[in-house]
Amino acid sequence: MTDGQGGARADGRTARRSRRSGIVDVARLAGVSIGTASKALNGRGQLRPETRARVQAAADELGFIPSAVATSLLRGRTYTVGLIMTDHHGRFSLPILHGAEDALGWDETLAFVCDTRDDPIREQHYVRSLLRRRVDGIIVAGRRTEPRPPLVGNPPVPVVYAFARSTEPVDCSVVVDEAAGAVAAVEHLLRTGRRRIAHVTGPPGHASTRARVDGTREALAAAGVELVGDPWYGGWSEVWGRFAAAALTRTHSDVDAVFCGSDAIGRGVADGLRECGRRVPDDVALVGVDNWQPTVEGCRPPLTSVDLNLREVGRSAGALLLQAIGQGAVPGVHQVPCRLVVRASSAPATIDG
Amino acid sequence: MTDGQGGARADGRTARRSRRSGIVDVARLAGVSIGTASKALNGRGQLRPETRARVQAAADELGFIPSAVATSLLRGRTYTVGLIMTDHHGRFSLPILHGAEDALGWDETLAFVCDTRDDPIREQHYVRSLLRRRVDGIIVAGRRTEPRPPLVGNPPVPVVYAFARSTEPVDCSVVVDEAAGAVAAVEHLLRTGRRRIAHVTGPPGHASTRARVDGTREALAAAGVELVGDPWYGGWSEVWGRFAAAALTRTHSDVDAVFCGSDAIGRGVADGLRECGRRVPDDVALVGVDNWQPTVEGCRPPLTSVDLNLREVGRSAGALLLQAIGQGAVPGVHQVPCRLVVRASSAPATIDG
Repeated sequence: MTDGQGGARADGRTARRSRRSGIVDVARLAGVSIGTASKALNGRGQLRPETRARVQAAADELGFIPSAVATSLLRGRTYTVGLIMTDHHGRFSLPILHGAEDALGWDETLAFVCDTRDDPIREQHYVRSLLRRRVDGIIVAGRRTEPRPPLVGNPPVPVVYAFARSTEPVDCSVVVDEAAGAVAAVEHLLRTGRRRIAHVTGPPGHASTRARVDGTREALAAAGVELVGDPWYGGWSEVWGRFAAAALTRTHSDVDAVFCGSDAIGRGVADGLRECGRRVPDDVALVGVDNWQPTVEGCRPPLTSVDLNLREVGRSAGALLLQAIGQGAVPGVHQVPCRLVVRASSAPATIDG
Repeated sequence: MTDGQGGARADGRTARRSRRSGIVDVARLAGVSIGTASKALNGRGQLRPETRARVQAAADELGFIPSAVATSLLRGRTYTVGLIMTDHHGRFSLPILHGAEDALGWDETLAFVCDTRDDPIREQHYVRSLLRRRVDGIIVAGRRTEPRPPLVGNPPVPVVYAFARSTEPVDCSVVVDEAAGAVAAVEHLLRTGRRRIAHVTGPPGHASTRARVDGTREALAAAGVELVGDPWYGGWSEVWGRFAAAALTRTHSDVDAVFCGSDAIGRGVADGLRECGRRVPDDVALVGVDNWQPTVEGCRPPLTSVDLNLREVGRSAGALLLQAIGQGAVPGVHQVPCRLVVRASSAPATIDG
């Protein structure tokens, strides 16, 4: 096996940083000038294939890794971007990070991840820190879907907003089409024969709540079916779901389906209904939103859910950022569709039930 | 307001990368040589305070941000590190990332985050990619506590392993003292008056399972109390917890406490016991492990849990990495203690109960 670190390794692990093989060593071993070695390794200039191969072989033997720091100064790009996130639990921003990585990987671009903790001072600090490192662009991943102001100071690199769009319409944003997700959920319930559908959801002030209510009303109106009662606004929690299920059972005992604004609410509704003696899905079908593994699988029965496709949001954001870096920004709001994942909680009511 | 991007901004947002203010502009505006401007902004050389202030004012006015890429070539450090993670859900690696950020922030160091998806090919790819960018060091965050082989190729920068230690004893690793966490859980149950304690946990092959069983036995032995039955090995899931609770109620109806190997198991045990007519905590007290917000708070009643202090693991890993970069590595395994977070599931049995 080739020892890439030359003599350093013999001095033990703590001393291994003492010397790296340089371009000078590569040139010497290949028997070419430093300029030729550099051209060969950077894929530039007119060189004979044999020369290029000899230099590459020498570099491999010495474990020489060309410095991206140095070459980026020549190319005018650092092949690094910043990913600013604000989400402590990672529920939303982690799939966005993974999707962005997928897209950036094609370009050998790495992401600095900065967690602002929703603190504007930290955000400004990180933006400056990223710009000092000459990142090629920045992705700003939201924790909620409320539109957010653009980054302070008009950074001189492309910025893409993911999940939460920028309030500046000309900025490039990638968001989830939440209303369409709600439409898909309600259409699914209608297709399985449900007609007495209620909607238990989160706080009325949230953009997500409004989009989901709008989609619910739209799908029901298209089918000529009325929503059972008003939307039940509350929190995003299981506790609220349990409470709402108990109340709903008292006030609207003929409900045969509930579209829940989140998986946590859905799980709470499932528990609440069971404790009121109602069977899921036989008596009442349930659909949640988020398709979050621990919650949909912990739910009894497992919960049908609207997947917000956050990984695809990240992938689009990464691809749009690369495009903005290379060819110019694609301004405006880009929507990613949701997809419905059907599980036992919304199986069709049994005919003989 | 100062427009840092000079004329570029007037051309619209897409054109704003066309020109950045350079050191030449700063020097011209401050009326000094380029060398003087550079010294002033880098805090080097002998300059009068007025000169330094004038250069800084000019830089501020032009929105000039010194390039870390260029200055890192001089300083021999890039103030960047790699954080390699393997955890899709982010359950474990995200708090480690946040802790590492806390530690690295003191040093103005940013982290490239690379998700290997437990794939050795991706890991090697990312290590090379990080080394090409001349990172000062690498943190490798595990998803499970099984020891893992060191990074392939003996990277010429310091490496710190977090959560999962390296199999190489001389490497620097930061791990959770899981056995001590189990001791704390069982001592707490004993202190609240429980004597018939069972242990429902995960797969027998996992290092975490073994450490928690060892801690449980140790704490019970110290108190002269015997474990009820053998440890109940299964999966880390709620489903397993529910099943185990039902079985335990049949085979050992006098159990008054269960130490559960994870919060998911604990939540399943709570549901299973309730459905068997046993009250938590009045009849049976419960403690879980992980202190994962959605699970401990969704549990009825809220679950007492051993917090693995992952943020502190990240903080230690970050601090040890900076130390390795600056002064030399501190080899060996560093242990971070757990802490018990008490909630309603382990309140003392009522005296008149």
